[in-house]
Amino acid sequence: MTEFGFIEHIRTLFAALPANGFEGIGDDCAVLPLDGDEALVFTTDLLVENVHFLRSAASAREVGRKALAVNLSDIAAMGARPVATLLSLALPPDAAGTWAEEFMEGYRSLSEESGAALVGGDTTRSADGIAINVVAIGRARQKHLKRRSDARPGNVVFVAGALGASGSGLRDILAGCCDTPLAAIHRNPQPQLAEGLWLGTRPEVRAMMDLSDGLASDIHHILDRSGTGAAIEIDRIPVAAGSDLETAACAGEDYKLLLTAEAAGAERLAADFGERFGTPLHPIGRITAGGGLVWLRDGEPVPLDWQGFRHY
Amino acid sequence: MTEFGFIEHIRTLFAALPANGFEGIGDDCAVLPLDGDEALVFTTDLLVENVHFLRSAASAREVGRKALAVNLSDIAAMGARPVATLLSLALPPDAAGTWAEEFMEGYRSLSEESGAALVGGDTTRSADGIAINVVAIGRARQKHLKRRSDARPGNVVFVAGALGASGSGLRDILAGCCDTPLAAIHRNPQPQLAEGLWLGTRPEVRAMMDLSDGLASDIHHILDRSGTGAAIEIDRIPVAAGSDLETAACAGEDYKLLLTAEAAGAERLAADFGERFGTPLHPIGRITAGGGLVWLRDGEPVPLDWQGFRHY
Repeated sequence: MTEFGFIEHIRTLFAALPANGFEGIGDDCAVLPLDGDEALVFTTDLLVENVHFLRSAASAREVGRKALAVNLSDIAAMGARPVATLLSLALPPDAAGTWAEEFMEGYRSLSEESGAALVGGDTTRSADGIAINVVAIGRARQKHLKRRSDARPGNVVFVAGALGASGSGLRDILAGCCDTPLAAIHRNPQPQLAEGLWLGTRPEVRAMMDLSDGLASDIHHILDRSGTGAAIEIDRIPVAAGSDLETAACAGEDYKLLLTAEAAGAERLAADFGERFGTPLHPIGRITAGGGLVWLRDGEPVPLDWQGFRHY
Repeated sequence: MTEFGFIEHIRTLFAALPANGFEGIGDDCAVLPLDGDEALVFTTDLLVENVHFLRSAASAREVGRKALAVNLSDIAAMGARPVATLLSLALPPDAAGTWAEEFMEGYRSLSEESGAALVGGDTTRSADGIAINVVAIGRARQKHLKRRSDARPGNVVFVAGALGASGSGLRDILAGCCDTPLAAIHRNPQPQLAEGLWLGTRPEVRAMMDLSDGLASDIHHILDRSGTGAAIEIDRIPVAAGSDLETAACAGEDYKLLLTAEAAGAERLAADFGERFGTPLHPIGRITAGGGLVWLRDGEPVPLDWQGFRHY
């Protein structure tokens, strides 16, 4: 069973249970509308040693920042502001001292930058490797929340930054070159918190999510949830310096925002974004009524077997 | 560094960060008061294979129930009602199929009994053992929330059930006897959800928490947070059938509620509890103005070096 097969199995298994005011599973975060015009959003990520990080290739401080960053990116993708986190740590004896303290310093530095309080957690021994679970809680006005299900045919598809740096950095690390600029980018993802919050306030933005498994994989979540297709012009995919087009389209962990916007307001949105953040919002294609995902070159479909990161 | 030393270190490290409306760390759950008279509470527990459970000694279904139960017990200890959970699973290849499905069945059965929705999560590969992180979210009226810090000198100390069954069951399991009744109790803890909710509504109840590490260890959390001492009459500690006094006082994972109540209303409270639940609320001693924790036999202090479960 793949990860997505298992998640689908779980969704079916729990479908009959009361929702207690929560929206259904399927977005970057779970959503709990509050009385009044606000909502809370919740996300969680579990990082496991030798799967998500190698102690030999990333400092404890970097792992601490990254464990939080990947969760904050999900909060940003909803158009929400991070308010709090809970942290669970399973530590083998050789990580319970200095490693854990340096991990916490990294976790703290991004907590401070993002304004998120640490409100709870759990620490325990581990028999084998380190395991880290982070829960992030965000807050937003209900009308500013962005969901994967709101793409509409004709929407322009944007990415909010260049892609592929993290994937190429991982390749460097796996080749034993841990001190390249791209390897540093892989170890230090920057969640687009200000960008996500700002995009949340823009009514012309429809669907939004963050790119954690790669464009070629992640965009299907928007298409599946919205019941649409998409045509992506591969020459418009912004490729990070030192990376390449296939890595930009297929590799994971860039943590850039992927969004769709109403065609009528798209140009204005991109101009305002560029003015606000000093970096462009890259239009890479269109949402279509159907037809799945089509890659285009010079306006013509190209058959490409591009896949994003596969979990197992 | 012990677990509690590390938690204290973290508390100091994060003290200067904004709280965003959350109460400080120190209770079974983090508390977020909402507008109006309600509050949300949050708790998380990380379970690691070969530390918290052995695949050879517990079925996947039992592990699924227990992973949820220990979190729901924290919700009950606040006087709150569970509303939702998030579940993270790291699975080695040999657990990604049948084991994971049976785990989810156990998790589902207690979700259904407790009325908690599953609203999010994460699944990933693991290089070594299974890791399971559960976050439980509860809801309560603010005035019904119970905290560890509200014990007052003169309060009666109660436990809401007999102790030691889980500890004696663990001893059976470690001796290779997995099919004893006590071993079954160890693998299938029952969070006192209805009891916690009911006790939350009683104004004479002051401090409350659940017993996860053993009375001898856990009661110190109430004493430390309330700035009080306690005198516990060891012959009044209710010992579960098949267990013994020292195990009842020191072993963990009974998940019974420990609470203090104003002396004036204590008898009425115990009578009402007995009538409502058909099982007694056991008075085991008194909160004192100071003097730490004192064990009494026939009203006289007895020097006992009883310790609860130590995390590392």
